[in-house]
Order: sequence, then structure tokens, then C-alpha cells
Amino acid sequence: MTKKNISELMLEVGSQAKLASHVLACALTQQKNQALDEIADALLKNGDQLLVANQRDVNIAKQEGLAQPMIERLTLNEAVIERMADGVRQIVSLPDPIGEIDNLCYRPSGIKVGKMRMPLGVVAIIYEARPNVTADAAALCIKSGNAAILRGGKNAFYSNQAISNCIKMGLTKAKLPQYAIQVLSTTDRLAVNHLVKMTQYVDVAVIRGGRGLVESVDSAANIPVIKHLDGICHVYIDQYADLDKAFAISMNAKTQCYSTCNTMETLLVQEDIASTILPKLAKGYWEKRVALRGCERTCTLLGDKVVPASILDWSTEYLAPILSIRIVSDISEAIDHIHTFGSLHTDSIVTENYNHAQRFLREVESASVMINASTRLSDGFEYGLGAEIGISTNKIHARGPVGLEGLTNQKWIVLGDGHLRN
Amino acid sequence: MTKKNISELMLEVGSQAKLASHVLACALTQQKNQALDEIADALLKNGDQLLVANQRDVNIAKQEGLAQPMIERLTLNEAVIERMADGVRQIVSLPDPIGEIDNLCYRPSGIKVGKMRMPLGVVAIIYEARPNVTADAAALCIKSGNAAILRGGKNAFYSNQAISNCIKMGLTKAKLPQYAIQVLSTTDRLAVNHLVKMTQYVDVAVIRGGRGLVESVDSAANIPVIKHLDGICHVYIDQYADLDKAFAISMNAKTQCYSTCNTMETLLVQEDIASTILPKLAKGYWEKRVALRGCERTCTLLGDKVVPASILDWSTEYLAPILSIRIVSDISEAIDHIHTFGSLHTDSIVTENYNHAQRFLREVESASVMINASTRLSDGFEYGLGAEIGISTNKIHARGPVGLEGLTNQKWIVLGDGHLRN
Repeated sequence: MTKKNISELMLEVGSQAKLASHVLACALTQQKNQALDEIADALLKNGDQLLVANQRDVNIAKQEGLAQPMIERLTLNEAVIERMADGVRQIVSLPDPIGEIDNLCYRPSGIKVGKMRMPLGVVAIIYEARPNVTADAAALCIKSGNAAILRGGKNAFYSNQAISNCIKMGLTKAKLPQYAIQVLSTTDRLAVNHLVKMTQYVDVAVIRGGRGLVESVDSAANIPVIKHLDGICHVYIDQYADLDKAFAISMNAKTQCYSTCNTMETLLVQEDIASTILPKLAKGYWEKRVALRGCERTCTLLGDKVVPASILDWSTEYLAPILSIRIVSDISEAIDHIHTFGSLHTDSIVTENYNHAQRFLREVESASVMINASTRLSDGFEYGLGAEIGISTNKIHARGPVGLEGLTNQKWIVLGDGHLRN
Repeated sequence: MTKKNISELMLEVGSQAKLASHVLACALTQQKNQALDEIADALLKNGDQLLVANQRDVNIAKQEGLAQPMIERLTLNEAVIERMADGVRQIVSLPDPIGEIDNLCYRPSGIKVGKMRMPLGVVAIIYEARPNVTADAAALCIKSGNAAILRGGKNAFYSNQAISNCIKMGLTKAKLPQYAIQVLSTTDRLAVNHLVKMTQYVDVAVIRGGRGLVESVDSAANIPVIKHLDGICHVYIDQYADLDKAFAISMNAKTQCYSTCNTMETLLVQEDIASTILPKLAKGYWEKRVALRGCERTCTLLGDKVVPASILDWSTEYLAPILSIRIVSDISEAIDHIHTFGSLHTDSIVTENYNHAQRFLREVESASVMINASTRLSDGFEYGLGAEIGISTNKIHARGPVGLEGLTNQKWIVLGDGHLRN
């Protein structure tokens, strides 16, 4: 496509999304739920077409030499399609957040003032080559009354187009505008640049994927961006930690899954307890073939199987069986380390000390702050949100797992009876 | 100052603000309140110095030929200084939002999950030449546990420096870091451009002032911006309106104050009721010397004293005794007009019809949506927030009047007892 064509296409997509968003914002819960049920049905009924489209994507990806874990994320089979349909149906059972009114109360002037929850409007979602995200994102946006413009990774292009057809069928059967969810028909990067500049049509962008992509789209954007950035998550083992809990949490946070953003990347250990717990933990990690990188004191304590950590290690999201370890003098130094090198994602303290637990909870600024729990629990399902569209590391608006509520905001409502300003 | 000096200065200001923000975030309510009381005292005790500094600003402003209303906003006298100190003291009596925990409840896994309110961190506030905003903004940031970097309009430079001294005295007496509130010592526009790019130090910017300033700073910014943009506020008189309420609200919304952002700029009238109410309203407006600009049907109805409105009128914030009027066929056309030309600030319907009231409330997307009330009531004090730092027309994060809560956000907290992810 030429530059001009892409610009025209995006303006058309944007203006249709805006029109559809006004309809979605006022759609009845029942109607939105019907659309979700119909989409789930359509995904199952058209499974064969989905598999054919997906096979085409997988073949191209293999020719392009895409890494095996990426190809796994991309590949559909009957079981995956069933899980996808189940995921859409689960959103039916979540309460509809739209229209909910909070704190409506009388003010001295006699007006009643409160807040009503409303959709954001048009949400652009830019994400990696994972077809299930297309279905999840569409379902979350429909239920929260938003129109969406979806742009998945190019390696899932044909799969996403096939899923898009199912979404359109569902919307049409529920008599909702089919432009409510638009899966872009181009993977040209220029299209994304247009999308995040159309302040008149797009209200917010959700960006998932590698740090490079997120930052480049964010800096091109004129609209607000909900960023899913690195997860440099910490566990801090306090001197007052229960050693069994500390061992179990530190192992689980690192080794339960290496490739997730809520996996621990740096372990902080208070100095008084380091010589007791670190050798035991190091043994556990080595058994799991986790490579350790340590501060000077860690290296001295654990010997030459630990590689010295460089300053870069403290701010690296490994997403791999690698862990950096630092011995700190106290909780203050641990919190300072987290403020300096953390990514505002998820951080956990292991302690039985009341004061230290309260301090950590109050002082650490991350989207999720935990006491005696594995960072791997930082997740929309674990928190009770149902599906999530990403984990926000922003300081404003939605933080942590972004579910239905993160796709909404509140407006003030004022109920008067002829009230004036004096 | 040279470019390099400004860049170095801003990095210093930013890093000091970040350090101070960690202290402020954990400061006790008592300590923050003490600082506010001390600042109020310092403003009163140093009134003479404030007046001298302010006179210097006023003299320069007069030489530069600044418009009279601007000079009025800039000018301090003893009464104004007392009101400024009172404003700071009023924030003492507001509840401290920080640390408040919502919805803490057990999840099936056994973890307790909830949300804790926390400061945003470092807030940069860019505002017009109004010295009282310096005191208000500092007080709101201190109470909400944020560090602030304040950059007022250059015409208030000396006044702001004098107020800054009082703020420093108050912070020091309460043993809080004096860098918690920094009033920039330069009015170079380059400094603002640096400020809104320092993602490592500044968490959010609040921008007040003309549309040009807000948009240019917003597009230069790499940090999230809370924008105080135009207020193109509407009153829609429905066919089911009570005529007395409609008359009173329409007059109050336009004529109670012309220069405020919550003043009505466009009146929408349903066609069945237009010939009854519009002539009466027009008479009222003409008595107050409000110039009317109407759609074709309005002009036909009201005669040649009404100037035909152009398409630009519907999207102009007059801030003056000018009103545009449009006759619409029904509530749907009114809502479409508001979606097309409004600025997401404040819109009000006048109606006694239950269904129309509910539709307006649900469908209009603005930050404040009203039934039978004057748009002039869209205000932090009227809503019970205490002071406000601006009125946000953003779609995400804080909307409408931004008070203490708008300067905070929530983080997830997870309380476990050795809980792991299965």
C-alpha cells in the first residue's frame, strides 16, 4: 500500500470505530453478552478455517526462521481454539462495569454528585503474534463497551483475519456494529504510526511486546498509551523471613516459568541471613540449571560458580534461567535498589516482621507490592479480574493487570433540580 | 542561561525532586499538615516581602502592556495573601488519601488482594501567571505526598520566588525536604521542554493555560500529561424541560461568569420548545449584552439581532459574552452535536423526563454530565474536593476537577503467607 492509501485507510478505520464506540457505550449488558457467546460459537464452528489460516502463518514463520517458542505461541490446534472460545465465554460471566455509580451524595448546595463508570471510547491494541490475544482483547473491549482497533504481530496475520471473521459474525448476530472490533488488514508499521496520532478518533493505545516496539510506538503517539514494559521483579528476603517460605517463594518466583514478565529477575537478601539461606538457594537454582550473577559479597559467599553481576544485570529482564543476586544491609537499601533498578511491575518482601512488612507495602511504588507471596501471582486471574489485556507499568490510570476496569474510567455526574452557581 | 546550563539545571531539579518524592510518599499525615500550617504562617508573616516582589512583577507587566484582567489575576494585596494562606490551611482539614486500602479480600488461592492509594511521585505543574496557584499547587502536592516542580507564567516570576521562600520555610520547619516543592528559577521555555522529557525523574505533568501552550507542551512531552484544555460546555433544553429551570440554568451557565472554563458556550434547544423559550431567553441575554450567534432556524426565529453561526462557532471557547445557539430535532441530535463539537468538559440537560435524563447521563462522554444544573457548578469546591489543581479533559486517569485524589493512584497489594503460583 502507498503512504497515502494507508493514511486514508486509517482515517476510515478510525472514524468507523468512533461511530461504533457510541453504540457500544450504550449497549445493554445482555446484548454484549450475546455477542460474546456468538463469537465463542463462531470460533468453534469455524475451527477448520482457523486451522487452515493458522497453518499458513506457521509455514511462513518457519520459513522466516522464527524461534521455536514464538512458533509455539502462534500455533493453533483444536484444544487451543476451545480454550480461546472458553476465554471469551468466561468474560460473559464477569459483571458489566459500565454505568455503575459510586459515592453519589448530596453536597451543601443541594446537588447530588457522584461518579459513573464509562468506557474509554476507542482503544487501539498493538500486540505480539499470538492469535488468542485477538479473541481476548475483542471480548474485553466488547464487554467494557469500547470499540477496538487490533493490530497483532505480522506472523499471525492470517489467523487474526480468520478470528476477525468470527468476531464480525458474533457482533452482527447480536445486532452490534461490526466496526466495533476492527482487526487491521495491513501489517505495515506506518499504519501503527497513524493510529496513535489520530487524537480525534482513538482515545487510548495499549501496547504489548518488546521494549523497543513499546518505546518507539509510545514516542510516536499523540494519544495516551497504556504500556506493558519490562518486568524486572524483585524478591527481598528480610532478616526476619521464615526460611522455608523464603526458599519456596524465591524458587517459585524464578523457576515456575522463565519467560513471563512477573518472573523474579533479581533476588535481594539481607546480610545477616545471607550465609544461612543463600547456599541452600544456590543449590536449588543450580539443580534447575539457573545461572547466577552476584554482587561481590554474593560471589565471595557462593564461590566461583557465580558470575559477578555488572550494573546492567540489575536492570535486565532476562526472561531466561538467569538470576542476579545482591546482598543488602537492610530493608532501606533493598527499597532503594528497587526504586533505582526496578520497572514498577511487581516486588515482594519475605518477612515475619510487622513493621518491615508495612514499610515495604507503603514505600515500594510498583504496580503490585507483595508480602510473603511469589511474584508469579501478579496476574489478572489470580487477582480476580478474569482475563487481562496486559500488565501496565504506567504510573497513571490503570496499573498492574489491566482487565475490564482498566478499559473504563469514571465521569462525574451531577443531579440537580434547577441548581445554579451563586 | 545557555542550553547546556538549562539542561544541567533541569537534571539537578529532577533528581532532587525524585529523592524528595520518596520521603514525601512516606511522610506522616501530621507532618504534612504541619508543613501546610507553617507555610500559611510564613505567607502571612512575609506579606510585605510578597507585596514588594509582586509590585515588581506588576510594574513589568504594565510596561509590557499586559491586558487588565491578566494584571488583576497577577496582583496581590493583603486580602489576597490572607485568602492564599486560608486556602493552604483548608487543605490541612482534608483527609489524607495516601495509604488508604480498598477492597482487600481473599482470593481462592488464599492470598488477600486489594488496592492501596499512593502518590504519583514527581508532578510538574505548568501554569499561568497567577501567584495563588503556586501556593495551592504546593499545598495539594504536599498533602497528596508528591514532590512538585512548579513553573508559573513569567509575569509572576518574582511573586512566585517569594512564595517559594515561604514554602521552603514551612517544609524545613516540618522537617520535610525543601526540594519537595521546587519553583523553577528560570522562565526559559526550553526548561519546560526538558522537564516533560525527563521520564526518569518526572512522573506526570499538569498543564494549564491557553490551548496553544497546552498542545505544544503535550506534543513535546514523553511523560503523561494531565491537560486542562478548552471548556466548550453545552446546555441542552429538552422538550420536557421545566421552562423556569431552563431559563434560570441557561442564564446562570452563560452570564454568572464569562471567563471560566465551565461557562456554557453553546445552547442547544429542542425544536418543539424553541419558539416558547428562545425569545424569552434572547431578551434575557440581550439585557446582559450577550451577543448571540444562531443556526439558521434560530436566526429565523429571533430575527436580525442574531448573527448566523459558522461551523467554527460550535467549537469555539468564547470566554466572553457571546453565545451560540442551535435548534435540534431531538435528544439524539443534541448528544451527536456534543460528541462532535464538545471538549469533554461539562454538559447539562434540562428535562423532567426520566428516560431522557438517564440517556443523557449515560451517553454523554464528558468529564462532568449534569441534569437540571448549571455548568458553572463543575468545580472542585462544589464537588467536595476542596482545592483543585485544574479541570482535566483527558479520557484516562483523573477527569474533571483534579484535587488530592487526582494526584494519586492505586497500587495492588498482595498479602500472602508463603503463597506460590501452581
